[in-house]
Amino acid sequence: MSFCFRLTASDGAARAGEMTTAHGLVHTPAFMPVGTQAAVKGVHHDDVRAAGTELLLGNTYHLMLRPGAERVAALGGLHGFMRWPLPILTDSGGFQVMSLAALRKVSDEGVTFRSHLDGAKVELTPERAVAVQILLGSDIAMQLDECVRLPAERAELERAMQLSLRWAERCKRAFEHAALDRALFGIVQGGDDPQLREDSVRALTALGFDGYAIGGLAVGETQRVMLDVVERTATALPPERPRYLMGVGTPSDILQAIGRGIDMFDCVLPTRNGRHGLAFTRFGPINIKNARHVDDPRPLDAESRCPAARDFSRAYLHHLFRSGELLGGTLLSIVNLYYYQELVAGARAAIAAGRFADFAATTISGWQSKADVEDT
Amino acid sequence: MSFCFRLTASDGAARAGEMTTAHGLVHTPAFMPVGTQAAVKGVHHDDVRAAGTELLLGNTYHLMLRPGAERVAALGGLHGFMRWPLPILTDSGGFQVMSLAALRKVSDEGVTFRSHLDGAKVELTPERAVAVQILLGSDIAMQLDECVRLPAERAELERAMQLSLRWAERCKRAFEHAALDRALFGIVQGGDDPQLREDSVRALTALGFDGYAIGGLAVGETQRVMLDVVERTATALPPERPRYLMGVGTPSDILQAIGRGIDMFDCVLPTRNGRHGLAFTRFGPINIKNARHVDDPRPLDAESRCPAARDFSRAYLHHLFRSGELLGGTLLSIVNLYYYQELVAGARAAIAAGRFADFAATTISGWQSKADVEDT
Repeated sequence: MSFCFRLTASDGAARAGEMTTAHGLVHTPAFMPVGTQAAVKGVHHDDVRAAGTELLLGNTYHLMLRPGAERVAALGGLHGFMRWPLPILTDSGGFQVMSLAALRKVSDEGVTFRSHLDGAKVELTPERAVAVQILLGSDIAMQLDECVRLPAERAELERAMQLSLRWAERCKRAFEHAALDRALFGIVQGGDDPQLREDSVRALTALGFDGYAIGGLAVGETQRVMLDVVERTATALPPERPRYLMGVGTPSDILQAIGRGIDMFDCVLPTRNGRHGLAFTRFGPINIKNARHVDDPRPLDAESRCPAARDFSRAYLHHLFRSGELLGGTLLSIVNLYYYQELVAGARAAIAAGRFADFAATTISGWQSKADVEDT
Repeated sequence: MSFCFRLTASDGAARAGEMTTAHGLVHTPAFMPVGTQAAVKGVHHDDVRAAGTELLLGNTYHLMLRPGAERVAALGGLHGFMRWPLPILTDSGGFQVMSLAALRKVSDEGVTFRSHLDGAKVELTPERAVAVQILLGSDIAMQLDECVRLPAERAELERAMQLSLRWAERCKRAFEHAALDRALFGIVQGGDDPQLREDSVRALTALGFDGYAIGGLAVGETQRVMLDVVERTATALPPERPRYLMGVGTPSDILQAIGRGIDMFDCVLPTRNGRHGLAFTRFGPINIKNARHVDDPRPLDAESRCPAARDFSRAYLHHLFRSGELLGGTLLSIVNLYYYQELVAGARAAIAAGRFADFAATTISGWQSKADVEDT
């Protein structure tokens, strides 16, 4: 069956939908946990699934360097290699090249860099980025793009956006050899400049992709600037294709972006913050390392679907962090993955029922309930 | 119901039995994973249970220093605090005082030391060791003893053994206030000296305990010396009480000790070695970090009861360790906990069927199958 997306409900700008992939259905709005190196940090796959995850993100940059795309392909693709049976989206590697690799040189041809692992010289072209993602066997591949950190000069934003467009075209051509049930998404660039974003959308949609991502956000700008770009860009994108806001974000970011028409998100926050002792809950974030929890017999949330949020006391979780027990980071990462999945599931249900604005307002006021909010 | 132990089968010196505790039945021979700080390192409680664990060990030394015995008691005892519903045995704290604490001073009264956490001065007497274990609410408490590292002079071994006996008597007296369904075990000391061990057994059994541990082994001596002490000591102990070999050991140690009449074991090896990339399997130990596994699609053991041993390829587990992903250590710790529990379950079944010698020989020859044994 070919990849397809259909809207099932909308409520204002917010949308609910279903993506059909070779590895199953994904309900949108969807949140993707990040499985950087073929694993979600500190969390067993079974727990990632139990949290409600339907789509996982894998990082092309990391996997192409180690264990290598050809090796992953020989071991059954990323699905077989890591034993993850549900849909997978891979990024193009571009973002990590920019943030992790040394001595990178961007040219029209592509980007050359030194591996952060062993210093080996590596070339990543649009064609190679697509080939690697086909080897990984992901259900959704991303075009290679260049992401610029904000704030940036308009000329720099325009150069990177135009380069990303030329790479988009080459990625699309390279992708034509992929199986029909795989999807390729284009990435809108242009920083915080409305005109550049509009140009990027127009050129990308003229090429035609299975879905569209908004890249180059959550890279230093305020939430207000980010949401403004999201709103303008989403409005300009074709309604019949999924929209993916890359690398975003906090629960608040996600809720606001859903309200502006975004369908897909990925972020390391649930697991990174979990490892550092921060739990996302209905009552707002809770810093479990805070001394006030040392004798607190209450669970994080007695009504959560998440066993770790429901069954363990705050005192016990606090103890695990104070004692340096890895289980603490694992449990809070699981708590956070459940919370993110509950947030998007709640949004989906609210959109279907035509009460997304109420849902958003109630959720936000829950975060501000004084009883549990922390000075994090 | 009071604590009780009954033998269900014996085969040569090997025994199978059942311990009844307030938190349920424990089948012996039993292996206890070590939950040092109210958690088995890197492994979720659910996985510890799924591996077949019926009895968990908690460390009095760690828990009395952090979060504190009175705090644990207020939070429901160790069972309630860590949400572990099955039986728990706690050690007395003596062994860790000797190995971890600074500036320790042993007198007839007890031992004073500086906490390894904050340097606070702490006193641990036989009475306090029992009081702490009652606060923790363990099903089986251990007497305070002094453990001497081998090799050691006979005079030093005798001094520590006699001191441990005086402490045993005080622990027994202090324990009389505990609930009837709790058990207190005495600890045989005497190093590698047969006469001292015999004296220790005679004096302890005259006092009378619910079970007897053999302490002061796996502290530097060879396996041959250890097994010799185990054999003599087990023979001298009353057959109607459980026998616990403390801090032991490798799968080979455990198999040999079961053959000499031991009923209970605890050891950090399954989790410590798991975190370092060493998997215990039917085919012997496998060092998953070895480069030979990089392309190996085979699981660790396709016929294991353990999902992690069965479902993930050696190549994937190798990749997790190479990439520093915590999930690797967690998965191998789980693999090892299953293997240890399968080993004692296999021994129990073999003893019941009167074929323990065959089981031991087959198990040992499996470890030596050339196809999979590694130069670890």
